[in-house]
Formats: sequence, C-alpha cells, structure tokens
Amino acid sequence: MNILKLGLPKGSLEKATIELFEKAGWLIKPAARNYFPKIDDPELDCSICRPQEMSRYIEGGMLDAGITGKDWTLENGSDAVIVADLIYSKVSNKPTRWVIAVAGDSGIRTIEDLQGKRIATELVNVTRRFFESRGIDVSIEFSWGATEAKVVSGLADAIVEVTETESTIRAHGLRIIHELMESNTQLIANKQSWADPWKRHKIENISLLLQGALRADRIVGLKMNVEDKDLDQVVDILPSLNAPTIAHLYQSNWFSVETVVSEDIVRDLIPRLIARGAQGIIEYPLNKVI
Amino acid sequence: MNILKLGLPKGSLEKATIELFEKAGWLIKPAARNYFPKIDDPELDCSICRPQEMSRYIEGGMLDAGITGKDWTLENGSDAVIVADLIYSKVSNKPTRWVIAVAGDSGIRTIEDLQGKRIATELVNVTRRFFESRGIDVSIEFSWGATEAKVVSGLADAIVEVTETESTIRAHGLRIIHELMESNTQLIANKQSWADPWKRHKIENISLLLQGALRADRIVGLKMNVEDKDLDQVVDILPSLNAPTIAHLYQSNWFSVETVVSEDIVRDLIPRLIARGAQGIIEYPLNKVI
Amino acid sequence: MNILKLGLPKGSLEKATIELFEKAGWLIKPAARNYFPKIDDPELDCSICRPQEMSRYIEGGMLDAGITGKDWTLENGSDAVIVADLIYSKVSNKPTRWVIAVAGDSGIRTIEDLQGKRIATELVNVTRRFFESRGIDVSIEFSWGATEAKVVSGLADAIVEVTETESTIRAHGLRIIHELMESNTQLIANKQSWADPWKRHKIENISLLLQGALRADRIVGLKMNVEDKDLDQVVDILPSLNAPTIAHLYQSNWFSVETVVSEDIVRDLIPRLIARGAQGIIEYPLNKVI
Amino acid sequence: MNILKLGLPKGSLEKATIELFEKAGWLIKPAARNYFPKIDDPELDCSICRPQEMSRYIEGGMLDAGITGKDWTLENGSDAVIVADLIYSKVSNKPTRWVIAVAGDSGIRTIEDLQGKRIATELVNVTRRFFESRGIDVSIEFSWGATEAKVVSGLADAIVEVTETESTIRAHGLRIIHELMESNTQLIANKQSWADPWKRHKIENISLLLQGALRADRIVGLKMNVEDKDLDQVVDILPSLNAPTIAHLYQSNWFSVETVVSEDIVRDLIPRLIARGAQGIIEYPLNKVI
Amino acid sequence: MNILKLGLPKGSLEKATIELFEKAGWLIKPAARNYFPKIDDPELDCSICRPQEMSRYIEGGMLDAGITGKDWTLENGSDAVIVADLIYSKVSNKPTRWVIAVAGDSGIRTIEDLQGKRIATELVNVTRRFFESRGIDVSIEFSWGATEAKVVSGLADAIVEVTETESTIRAHGLRIIHELMESNTQLIANKQSWADPWKRHKIENISLLLQGALRADRIVGLKMNVEDKDLDQVVDILPSLNAPTIAHLYQSNWFSVETVVSEDIVRDLIPRLIARGAQGIIEYPLNKVI
Amino acid sequence: MNILKLGLPKGSLEKATIELFEKAGWLIKPAARNYFPKIDDPELDCSICRPQEMSRYIEGGMLDAGITGKDWTLENGSDAVIVADLIYSKVSNKPTRWVIAVAGDSGIRTIEDLQGKRIATELVNVTRRFFESRGIDVSIEFSWGATEAKVVSGLADAIVEVTETESTIRAHGLRIIHELMESNTQLIANKQSWADPWKRHKIENISLLLQGALRADRIVGLKMNVEDKDLDQVVDILPSLNAPTIAHLYQSNWFSVETVVSEDIVRDLIPRLIARGAQGIIEYPLNKVI
Repeated sequence: MNILKLGLPKGSLEKATIELFEKAGWLIKPAARNYFPKIDDPELDCSICRPQEMSRYIEGGMLDAGITGKDWTLENGSDAVIVADLIYSKVSNKPTRWVIAVAGDSGIRTIEDLQGKRIATELVNVTRRFFESRGIDVSIEFSWGATEAKVVSGLADAIVEVTETESTIRAHGLRIIHELMESNTQLIANKQSWADPWKRHKIENISLLLQGALRADRIVGLKMNVEDKDLDQVVDILPSLNAPTIAHLYQSNWFSVETVVSEDIVRDLIPRLIARGAQGIIEYPLNKVI
Repeated sequence: MNILKLGLPKGSLEKATIELFEKAGWLIKPAARNYFPKIDDPELDCSICRPQEMSRYIEGGMLDAGITGKDWTLENGSDAVIVADLIYSKVSNKPTRWVIAVAGDSGIRTIEDLQGKRIATELVNVTRRFFESRGIDVSIEFSWGATEAKVVSGLADAIVEVTETESTIRAHGLRIIHELMESNTQLIANKQSWADPWKRHKIENISLLLQGALRADRIVGLKMNVEDKDLDQVVDILPSLNAPTIAHLYQSNWFSVETVVSEDIVRDLIPRLIARGAQGIIEYPLNKVI
Repeated sequence: MNILKLGLPKGSLEKATIELFEKAGWLIKPAARNYFPKIDDPELDCSICRPQEMSRYIEGGMLDAGITGKDWTLENGSDAVIVADLIYSKVSNKPTRWVIAVAGDSGIRTIEDLQGKRIATELVNVTRRFFESRGIDVSIEFSWGATEAKVVSGLADAIVEVTETESTIRAHGLRIIHELMESNTQLIANKQSWADPWKRHKIENISLLLQGALRADRIVGLKMNVEDKDLDQVVDILPSLNAPTIAHLYQSNWFSVETVVSEDIVRDLIPRLIARGAQGIIEYPLNKVI
Repeated sequence: MNILKLGLPKGSLEKATIELFEKAGWLIKPAARNYFPKIDDPELDCSICRPQEMSRYIEGGMLDAGITGKDWTLENGSDAVIVADLIYSKVSNKPTRWVIAVAGDSGIRTIEDLQGKRIATELVNVTRRFFESRGIDVSIEFSWGATEAKVVSGLADAIVEVTETESTIRAHGLRIIHELMESNTQLIANKQSWADPWKRHKIENISLLLQGALRADRIVGLKMNVEDKDLDQVVDILPSLNAPTIAHLYQSNWFSVETVVSEDIVRDLIPRLIARGAQGIIEYPLNKVI
Repeated sequence: MNILKLGLPKGSLEKATIELFEKAGWLIKPAARNYFPKIDDPELDCSICRPQEMSRYIEGGMLDAGITGKDWTLENGSDAVIVADLIYSKVSNKPTRWVIAVAGDSGIRTIEDLQGKRIATELVNVTRRFFESRGIDVSIEFSWGATEAKVVSGLADAIVEVTETESTIRAHGLRIIHELMESNTQLIANKQSWADPWKRHKIENISLLLQGALRADRIVGLKMNVEDKDLDQVVDILPSLNAPTIAHLYQSNWFSVETVVSEDIVRDLIPRLIARGAQGIIEYPLNKVI
Repeated sequence: MNILKLGLPKGSLEKATIELFEKAGWLIKPAARNYFPKIDDPELDCSICRPQEMSRYIEGGMLDAGITGKDWTLENGSDAVIVADLIYSKVSNKPTRWVIAVAGDSGIRTIEDLQGKRIATELVNVTRRFFESRGIDVSIEFSWGATEAKVVSGLADAIVEVTETESTIRAHGLRIIHELMESNTQLIANKQSWADPWKRHKIENISLLLQGALRADRIVGLKMNVEDKDLDQVVDILPSLNAPTIAHLYQSNWFSVETVVSEDIVRDLIPRLIARGAQGIIEYPLNKVI
C-alpha cells in the first residue's frame, strides 16, 4: 500500500494541529513516549517532530510532508515545496513576527547602532543573512531559550525573538527596533514526493481538507425564514461567501434562506436581518467550508 | 470611534460569561494580571469586575453596561437600567436564592425568633432592610466568607447566605427558616449610556445575541424526511417554538421537515416521530436561536 | 410516578458514558461522594456502580437496567437481558480483548503448557470455566490489580488480562499466547423490569437515543449545491447511509443536496464531489442519527 | 550474594512506607510502571505489591518479607511470621478498625438483626468466619469498592468496612453496630526465610531500624544548660525515656543536660524547665531512637 | 476540663501557621469543610477564621485567643490584649506595609492632592481615620479585591493596599505616594480570658513555644572540636546568642564546643572558625530555641 | 560594595541547586518571569541561565562564577576555572554519561561502523571532536530534543545522548555502543574574577559551604552512651570520617560518644554498636559537615 510519511509539529502548535486534523477528518491519538502518534488512516504514517527540524527531514526525504513554521524552513535553508499557508485563527489577529529588540533604556535606536554588538537568538542563520545583507557586523550567539532575559541581564545587547502580541517583550521592558520577518504555519512537502502522483494527490487532499477545516473555524451556518415580499431585501445584505440556498416552503409564500457567514459579522448581521423581516433565525456550527 | 465600556463578572460567573459571549459571537481572551481582557470588537472595552461592585461602577458611569447578579445591584442600591435577565442553564433547574439559615438543632424557628440575635452575611444592606421592614431588631455583621461555618462554631446565631441546591447549607447541618430573595444574572446599563442612541443600540444588540446564545444552549435542530401521507401527523406533534420548515423533495412525494426543539424533549419526541412515519432523523447542535 | 433505576459504570467508562447521555439528551451531574448523580429526567434514578458488580445488582433487581461490560456480566454468570451493544468509538478500532499472556522469555507457548501453573487474573470465573472446558489444570488466583507486573516479578506464571492496543502488555515485556474473549459495553436489563411495559418502553427509548448519539459521533452532515446537469453523478457517489435530501433552489436550475456520511470517508469524498461539480460544500456536526 | 526479597505495600501506605525506609536509612526510588522500585542496598530486592495480596506471596515464598496490614494477612489465612507491629503515627491517635455499619435509619441494631441480610465487604473471609462463629446466617458479597454507598442505595443491608476516624461512615449517614477487629501495619516474613540465619538477621535489622525511625517520628532531642544548684530539680522532671546525658562544662559550675523526649510533652515540659532554672534550651529533630 | 478556644487565620497565613504550631509541638490536621481543624491537645479548640474577622470574635469572647494581623485588629478597632508579635521569616526581609498608590502617570504627588478623590481599599476604617486626622476629604469605597486594577481602569483615583515587595504594585504600573502603616502577625487574646489564670498560663505557654519555634527557623546548631591552645580565639568569634557549651574531651587536650547561631551568618563564620583552628565542624537543624 | 555575579542553572538542576544553597546558608527565592532570583546576601547577584550557555557567559565575564555541567563547558570550549566538582546525591549512584546509541536491531556494533552515518545530538562540538580524533567521518546534526526518537523513526542512524540510568535509552529500544564521556555538576569561575582576591575569597567560601552541605546530605550525627569497659570496642568500629567526640558523664563511669557517619552504613552499624554495649543510640540530621 502507498504510504505518506507526515510530520506534525511538537510543542506550541501540537495541540492545535491535532485538533485541526480532527476537524479535517483524521483522528490522531498521541502515543506517550515514542513520538509516533496513531492516525486512523492506513495511508498515513505520522511523526511528531520539532518545527525547527521539520524542513531538514522533509528536504532529506525522511518525511514526505509536514506542518511547520515558515521561519524554520528559512532558517534551515531547506529546499522544499510550500503546499499551503495555514493561518490558525487567534484572538489577537496579529501575525507572528521575528523582531529585533533592545533594552528599553538602551541608546540603540536603529539596526545600524548594532554594529559590533552581541545578539542572542534561536534563529541564527536568518539573523546572520539579514545583517550581512545590510553590511552590519554583529556577533550572533545561539540562545537556548529565555532570550528576552539576556538583554535585561546584560548577557546580550539585543535579541532576535518571535512575538505575536509583544506581551513578553514588553513584560521584560524591551523595545522593538526592527521587524525581521513575518511567519506562519505551512504545509510543506519533499520535492520527490511532490513529483509522485499518488503522494501529490494525497498531500493536496490533506491540504484541501485542512484549509476547509480552518475556514470553518470562525464561519457559521445561518438559516432563517423569509416571506416572499422581503426576500430580496434580506438576500441583499447576505455576504457573498457562498451563494445562499433558497427554497420555497411547502404551501406557503415563505422561503427558507440558508447561508454561511463569518462568525464575527453575525453579531452585526442578525439585528439587520430582523429589521428586514427575517424570522426564526438559527445559527449552527460548521466543521468544514470548502 | 464610539466605544462601549462593558463590565464582565469576576469569579464563578466569569468562565460561563466568556463562553456565552463566544457563542454570541465575541471572542474574549483573558489577560493574565491586569483585568482587561481582549475582545475582538473594536467598539467594546472590557473590564473584569467583581459582581459585588459592578452596579456601583455602572451607576457612577465608569462602565456603560455590565453582567452582574440582581442581588448585588440591590445590595448596592444602585440606580441602573435592567436590560435583560440572563438565565444561565443549570442541571439543578433551581433558582439562586438568598436564605436565612440557623443551626439544625437551634430553637429558632421563625424570623421573629431572631430578635436580638447576631446575623452574619455578605449581603448586609439587603438583610438590614429586610429586618427593618419586619420590625425585627438584629445585629448584622459583614462576613468575609465561610459564612455557614459561623453558625456551626457559634460565632453567629444565623446567616443570610446564597444557595442553589442547598448542599453546602445541609453539609454544615444548617436549617433554612426563610427565603429572602431570588436572584439571577442580569445585563444592566448606566442611565446616561442608555439615553445615548449609539450605546443603547449596541447594548440592545449584545442583549439580543446573548439571549439568542442562551436560548440555543439546550435547543437543537431536528431534521427528518416524511412521506406526504404522514406529513400532517408528524407536524402535529412538533412543538411550536418556531414554525417547522417544510420543503418538497425533488421528484418524490416526500418532504424534508426541519425544526428546532428543546433538547430535553428530544428524547421523548424522537420515538413518537418514528412511530408516525418520520425517517432519517438527524439532530444537530445550534449556536443561536433568535 | 414510574421510576427506572439505572446503573452507570464507575471508572474508565464513567466520563464517556455521561458524555454519551448528554448527547442523547440527558444531563447528568456527578454528585461528589454519594454515588447518586443527578439527572434531569424525573423518571430516572441513577446509581454509579462498578462495572464488575453491575450485572449482580441488575439480576437481583436492585437496578432495572445499566451500562456495563459484557465480560463482567459473563464473569458474574448473571441472568439479564442484553438490550444493546454500545460500541464506543476509539482511535484504535480494535476491540477490547481478554488475553492470556506470559513472560516474553518464558518457555510457555500454548495453553496446554500452562498445566499446573499459577495464573493471576481479575476475571476468575471466566478463566476457570475456560481452563476446565479444555481439561487443563491450573491454579487461578484473584489479582487486586497491576496484574502484568506479577509475571515480571515471578509472582505468577501467566495472567489473564484485558487489553485493547496491547501497549501495557508489551511495555511489561509479556507475550500473548491466547485470546479468551472479546468484550464491549452493553446496556443490560433486569428480566422482570423488561417484562413491565412502561419500564421496557423507557429502556428501549434510552437504547434508541444512546445508539443514535453513538452513531452521530463520527457521522457528519454534508450539504452542497449542484447544477441539474451534475445532479446524477454527484448523487451516485453519495454513500447510502440515509437517502440524500434534494431540494430545488428557488428560480434556478441548481439543487441543494444534503446527506449524512461517516466522517472518516469525508476526506476522500469531498475531492471526488468537487471533481463532479459540487459547489459550496459545507460539513456540519450532528448530535444524533436515528 | 545473599538477597532478601522484600514486599512494599502499594496504595495508601506506599508513600509513608518509602519515607519510613528513608528515615531508617534506605533510599527507595519508585520506578514508573514495573512495580520494582530501586533501593540503595544490593542485599534487597523490592517489589510493590497490594497489601491484600502480600501475605499470599510471602506464604508462598515468592517474597521473603513484607509490609502489610494485619487485616489482610488474616483475610488470606496466611501462615507467616509476624516480625513487628509498625504503628505509623497519625493525628487521630485512633486505631484502624473494621466495623459493621448499617443505614442510619435502619431498624438493624445488633448483629443478630443481620440474620438473612446481604452484607457487602472487601474482607469476605474474615467476615464469613465472624458470622459463622456467631451462628448468624448472612449473605456476603465481595465489594469492588465504594462500599459505603451500597447501603445508601439499598444494594446491601450492611457493610463491613475499614475506618479510622469514621468520617466517611458518617458522611454517608451510616451507623456502626459492631467492631469486627482492629488492624495495623506489620512486618511479616516467610517461615523458611525466617529459619535462614542470614535472612532472619537481615529482617531483624530492618525491623530494628524501622522501629527506631518510627519512634523518632515524634521524639525530639532537648539540650539545656543548668547550674549545679539546680541540677537535681531539673533532672527530676525529665521523663525517663533514656537516661539524660549530663556533662560538666569547662571551668564553670554549669552542666550541659541532654535528653530525648516525646514531642507532645515538650510544650508542657519547657515552661517547667525554665521555672526550675534551665537556660539556653534548644530542641532538635531526630532521625532514629533505638 | 479547661478549654481554650483558639482562632487560626484562614488564607495566606494558614499553612505557615499550621507549620509553626507543628514546630512548636502541636499537630493540627485541617478538616475539609467545617473549619474546625483537629489538634492533638485536648485543652485546645481550634477554629479557622478570616484574619479580617478574628479580633471581632476575640473581643466578643467567642474565641479566647487567636493569630491575626495587627492591621485587621486596628481596622476593627477591637479591644484585645496583644500577647506577642510573631514575625514570620521571609526572604524579602521587608515588613508588610499598607500604602497609598496612584497611577504611575497620575498628577497626584502628595496625600493632599487626594482631596475630593475616590479611594478603593479593603481597609476602610483605618483609611478613613487616617484622612480625617489629616483633614483631607476623600471618598472611600470598600474594594472586594483586585484593588490595584481599579486605578489602572480608572474606577478609582488611588488605592490603599497591602504590599511586601511592591511587586504587584509595580506590575500594575502604580506609584506609592505614602505609607499608612506597617503590620505583622500577632497573637492576641480576649481581656476576660487573659484575666483567667489558667487561660493566661495556657496562652503564655503557646506564646513561648511559638516564639521558640520562630526563633529556631533560621537558627542552627554548630558543633566543632578545638585544641586547648585555640580555644580562646575560637570562642571569641562565636556570637553570643546563648553562651557556648564547652566540654573537655576524654583523655585529650581537645574540647567540644557547641553553640547556636543565626543561619545567615554561618556562611561567613565557618571559614573564620577554620582559620582559627576549629575542626570537624558540623551544623545541625533546630526545632526550637528558647 | 563588592558584588559577585553568580549564575544558577535553569532546568533539571534548578530546584536541587536552590535547595543546596538553602542548606549551605543562602535563601534564594525564584522571581517569576525575569530570571533574576532574589538572594539574602547583598554581595551576590544571581542570574538563572541555561547550563548550555553558562560557561560562555562566565568566560565572557558577564558572570563571575556559576553552577553548570562539565559537559557543556567542554562543548563550548570555554576557558574557565574549575573551582569544585559538586556531586549531587542520587539513588542510582551512577554517573551522568554521554553515550552513543543505535537502534536495538541495527547492524552497527562499533564506532567504526558509524562511518558515513547521520548522528543527532545536542552536544555537537564534543561529538565532532571525538569522531575527528578517531578519524571517523560522520554527519552530525544538532538535535532540538527528543533525540532518542530519531533513531526509532529513522531520522538518524545514531545519537549521542546523556543518560544516568539508561531507562529512556532502553524504553526506546536503543543499544549503547560507546561511552563518550562522564559529566557532573561543577562550580566554575571567570579567570579575571578568580584573580581578584575579594571575588576569589567569596567564591571559595561558597564552594566550601556548598561542599559542606552536599557532604551532609547523606551523613548523620550519631550519639550514644557507653560504659567505660565497652568504650574501646565501640569506638573501634566507628568509621573515621571525623574523630568521635567522647565526654565523661557526670558522676558515673559512662561516656557520651558522638560522631558523624554516612547514612547508608548506619543501618549496618547500629546493630553492631548494640552488640558491643552501646545504649540510648540516637541519630540526628545534619545541615553541613565541613
């Protein structure tokens, strides 16, 4: 049987990824120690793998495809196919960014001021390429963690660190002086695997379903009854994500109107629908929107 | 931009309230220390606030509206608009009540027997007004917590305490001799804010959606196929929460019948629907029922 | 009022059973110490009871019906009505089995090699009957738990133990030499209760709803829009769990097609539906499929 | 090398036993799954074993000695050497007892009233022997746990259950009508092992040190300086656990007086010592008192 | 028998107080719900009681004595005997203080600037007396908790709050403009109880032992051997907490020198003792130093 | 004031190190986020720092001294003063070792078989130097964690990983083919700091006290009374860690004998002391043995 070797990211993305696969249609059960979770699809072999290492193993062919961060694929300089961007939903609505930060009371204002300084980061290669391209000579040290604290304690002059809401940065009293790059989760694939028709078809199906599940995360179904005289004015304000499904109700001049809308506009839409004559409005959750 | 300052209750209602807002269409993300959770609506500014203090801040205009208990609004004697009662669903189906309780083996049987006694409570003002209105002279002391234990240990002769299932009351061996008042969660608003059209419209929309989400909590969608000859007898037994949506199926003498019903009658309804000819019955969850 | 006394299994099945009843339409709230959870149906009295003892209490009439494992009903030799098999969904897709296992490096290869040996098990009676029927003389000792360890430490020569994925068996380095029986969860009833029309009707309704909820666990609703020219080829590939509901859309040559399918085929079905012209595919969760 | 196979009790005694061995001089490190903890004494092989099964394995020679409850050795009717009673210290100062309890409102007052009744217990054999010796005919059923609840729910007429403070018994509203037996922890040994001089010597050393550590648990060292004129009246009130150690201080008419006393009398003793002239009193903890 | 009713503080002091009593010689075992912990002294009846309420119950005679904060006794204006200050040891070495704090960027610099402002605090009476004594008119509101956040959110202009390290104050970006009072834990007694010889004697003994245990918390025993020629220069640098105990060693010109010293000077003392000829230095823990 | 900047290791050693400093005489209180714990010695500034980075910061002079593993100092090739080896006590009594491991069923038997293979490790530089010195050409990849799993999943041919009991190695089914190095915790110092008399003196005092506390961890004080006729034969078997302290008891022919011994021999020593006439033996814990 054909088998696709799939890498899942360990750590902060692990739980969200397993939940996403469940919504997409695959049950994954983490196995305690050995890093090979079980999945209810005999065509898939899953490995849990650090995002930092994922692209290396995909480039090397030990894995056919995997979920990882764009940042780490760049850090490793790996040659792999970017199949899809997977934007996991968040409250903050802010992208994940790698930024250069210094102590709040530091005299350093621009990246040029970093000439000759010590910089601590987990993203050594991307950082090095960035400063080389600007012609700024800095000393870059690999940080094993707690990177923000190093500026506070004087162990480093600046850091390159990942942030979403900047809350950890600010909690340490640091100041951001530059943004290096944005990052997001991606589905990537090995080049040879992508050239294999069966594997490519399988990867594309996974991509389709994962994206359908992601799309459904904050999209809901909305159903209402509308009299014929109100039909046009109700349909007019429905957002055009998909065309609404309109059906004539039995032996009446009423219609059932059904559509999918983004959850964050429902709170504004419903009062307007009521004002235009919609009745019996119900909202229901969705698993996937393709 | 217009901004509505909204108070959310800290403590036992906090989690349920955040979940209710999520069902109503707003994502709230608690922020660790500073009591100002983030919400994905730029027109709202949220504060987490003790239910005991909410109405004071709403009356004073520091907040435009908030979720709190009817009991604490009364305790504070605050002048505020009661926008809506929000009855959170519970297993017990019993209301929240403030009761007067004494030791199980106490000679005190009626509230008149409390003449001259010490009463411990968190609800000092409501309790004082109650006894004054009855002309009973008691000594009322503010209790910082663990009120039931005070009767057991002889630190107080009676308590006025909140209870739903009476289980804590009974676990301490206390006996209820009177019910002071029932309480429930409410959405309340500042009077000036309510007079402002934009704020009132915003508060009313929140109220509409919160109530729609509450209603959906134990209501489900039911869909089935019914042959034309059985249609009337099936429709007859559907509860009339909303009128059912009936649509003719393509090229057949069958109909799709869809309705929303309270979950706690589904278990009795489904066997009766089968008996009357319904087929392919499915039940699906709802987010909101307006 | 008529009352049905219902036993719910304590332990590993407890949480799953309460969740199943919730999906089926009954809210059960565990009560801390006294083993009598509250349920929002005045016709039901619930007791939490060890699966090992359930059938004894049902046979003896102390309970009318209960959820327990087939294995323990057999162990007790209880005379009860098997109302329904309830196959709880699992990742492993493997049945629960009672197996005979020995140390990995043991010379014991067949059950005949166990002649004269010590066997530790919680399932003493089933084990005894098994070996008696084969004419093999063994010494069977009741094990209070941690049965696998007894083979490792030499306290027993073999064990009879329950397993699903064999992971605990293998983690102790044991080898399975025989499978005694498969087991699964069942709804069972007392014979007299079953003869009482009201009780039997109530038990059958519970059984119907529990099975409807179980079926819905990995079944989803699928809805899509299809043009008339593509209708046949789309409907052709829909699995025939229930017939699809097809409705003509208002003033167009498109149809709304709706059906329920097993979630584990959705991931293969959706790409094929798209290839055949389906549009606006949404998937939504179900609570029950009757 | 000579090896002694030692059984340690799993469950409620496990942590206290490991701590006791640590005070006695042996470090035991629990090993996650396989029930064979490591100990820093090459002459000992430890197994973790249910107290209920311990005496069976000691009688059978699979273990040389072990820590278990007197109750379970009696239940199993095992023929083993009782090496020492180990009374673990507790706040309650009450012994562990097996009692017969009935519902608080039951008409059953004496054990004779139990004639023909159903009794649930984990201690089936001891219970059976007890009632047989009294000539009372009862039906005894093995209980897998939560025994108290069975009387509450009517699944049993009485229970035989273990209790120390009676709090669980009372929390279920039960009434004790008889005490079957007291129990305590014991060190027991296999008869053949006891006859082996090396093993007996090893077991006796373990017993000596465990008892020395237990004794030290609530005993402390007390040291003070006393002038010659006060020496007699101070020494007079020192309890005679061990004779006090009295040494003349260098170039002075003062003495150092040192003794060991039970911690629960220290609080009364110290004020009296001060009154009789003791100075510079210090109290220090002990690991062992032999 | 004579009984002393003793109040123990619930909350942040509870665990430390129970540990202190254990070191002092009394075992207290918290009882789950009913707030009356068990103690192994039949002459004592313990109640767990909020520090905020303790002095009220002691003044009223419901309790004879109790452990509480000096701040709450003042807040309640209770008339009670201050038996002893109990300074629990802390890393910070800073006293507990009630301070007035405002927003970091507020224009308020002095307490006079608070004229006409809103102040939130749990310590309403002490705060009111403070501002009245200064002739500053402020509006004081009882705060149910999370007091710091109220300044941040504009619900109050200033707060009066307790702090030790100021870390919560600073984490909210507040600025301290005045210190109201220092506080510490105290043992206090009812006036009538103090006049009763038996009760006073019992309270004084408790005070003696609690203080002995507190003193021992960071004091250790030090013992060393010293040759006669070095004796003077060693003894010279021993701190004079208690006079050292010096004893001639058997058949030698060496002495055993033993003393008690504060643990935080040991790290400086030991190197100096070695330099002056001390050998075989050991340090051992103490339970009490009277 | 002179200040010594001291690095404490984050992670698995953190808690043990803080406890060791507490025994040595310094209270360290971890501060939540910012990695600079408080210590009750104004001459010390503590930073929490990954062991992997410690030697880099000490070599660079950002820290004066620190606690880290010998392995990471070697990995970084740092030029620092090794002040002391600190052997933390463990049950296993086995040193920490870095080993080369392969899959259990691999054909690789010797390090020469690794020619041309992929090796994953966190200890890249030490590993590289090792294989270069042997003339074996391997491809070494930095592993971000879960190194053992990489051999299991085929992502690497071998690993270099740290182990104490080999339990994780064995749990993954790996086989050790070589030991690279042993490691242990060390106190190391910056070379310039070591040349500064005040800093060196401070570091040496810390080293003295830490070692005194470590030594005391499994050493105890033993005290007994011995009659003059038995004195020699008792003293003869006392181990000569420090010479015993012998003092004549007042007005008797008995002696007090006191010594310190390793706790793991106490269990054998006490029975022998009793046999030779020792009485009233007590054992007490020690904080430090210098």
